[in-house]
Amino acid sequence: MADHNALPLIILAEKFAKLPGIGMKTAQRLAYFVMSMDENEAVEFAEAIVNAKKTVHNCGCCQNLTEREVCPICSDDERDRSVICVVESPKDVTAFERTREYNGVYHVLHGLLSPMDGITPDSLRIRELLARISDGSVKEVIMATNPTVEGDATALYIANLLKPLGVKVSRLAFGLPVGGILEYADEVTLFKALENRNYM
Amino acid sequence: MADHNALPLIILAEKFAKLPGIGMKTAQRLAYFVMSMDENEAVEFAEAIVNAKKTVHNCGCCQNLTEREVCPICSDDERDRSVICVVESPKDVTAFERTREYNGVYHVLHGLLSPMDGITPDSLRIRELLARISDGSVKEVIMATNPTVEGDATALYIANLLKPLGVKVSRLAFGLPVGGILEYADEVTLFKALENRNYM
Repeated sequence: MADHNALPLIILAEKFAKLPGIGMKTAQRLAYFVMSMDENEAVEFAEAIVNAKKTVHNCGCCQNLTEREVCPICSDDERDRSVICVVESPKDVTAFERTREYNGVYHVLHGLLSPMDGITPDSLRIRELLARISDGSVKEVIMATNPTVEGDATALYIANLLKPLGVKVSRLAFGLPVGGILEYADEVTLFKALENRNYM
Repeated sequence: MADHNALPLIILAEKFAKLPGIGMKTAQRLAYFVMSMDENEAVEFAEAIVNAKKTVHNCGCCQNLTEREVCPICSDDERDRSVICVVESPKDVTAFERTREYNGVYHVLHGLLSPMDGITPDSLRIRELLARISDGSVKEVIMATNPTVEGDATALYIANLLKPLGVKVSRLAFGLPVGGILEYADEVTLFKALENRNYM
């Protein structure tokens, strides 16, 4: 925003521009929008930011974000605690919960192994996962990281840690997306779909 | 965001979703991003919102947003106060300032006439524009509203108010955008370009 603009507006736009996927032009538009809000609305927006940041933390068990000590999923007696689905981020928990088909619990790693970016096993919540498995009550761990280089490497790394503990480790199936058109599938997906074919 | 999510996070995502162009999915992503900020950063972001809203208001002269009583453009002695460029919103002032070619002053209407949406002349800063012209020092008013139905109607309405006061009223030229390709220009733009052709 140019020199003639009000400084508090420029500062606000710069804050918006730090958010992921928000460029300087959008940030400026959002800052102008804040100007059109009621003062109450603006204060409530600001409070929501501080409040979320201050009250939300990682669940003591699965490391998902929650404002309680233990999250609603971990403290739900109807969930099967013998199956743990290991995911990269809280967003992935939301994705699985949307299917309404999974009744086990989760473990959120908060990242994927990426030595190039300095993300080593110590940066992830792997120690907490091993602690959950140590009491012998867990039968299966489903590695549900993304089908990317980092996702595969993380899944493999954790699987190698868990197998000696006698726990079953599985990986999500990869293949054609349901409703997808074969013609538009990329080669790797198509190869995976062929490799993992089911006999009818 | 689903039931298992922390309530403060859901509330924050809903606030983000009220911003223009931010859907629920992006809002959720932004809320998660706030979680990854330092607490200081989050507090500074929140303060920037409240501070911008509380300290920025309309310039007493041109109605552009400023944290001063009179904005830097209106109080700049090197600007030509006999020419006023009338625009819809503060964004448009930024666009003109970027050209570095305009040395007059501005007047921000904060909207365009749109009787269907209940925006009548009283909702815009037209009275303030007339007040600025009353002392006879203004020689020309450039109507720089968008070339849309509402922009044209607003320009015409204000021009009709100003002409009896003996002030020259002009309208931005419409034609092909510089660097544009004739083939891709829409019919109306091409017609305007033809109609406003300059003899060489």
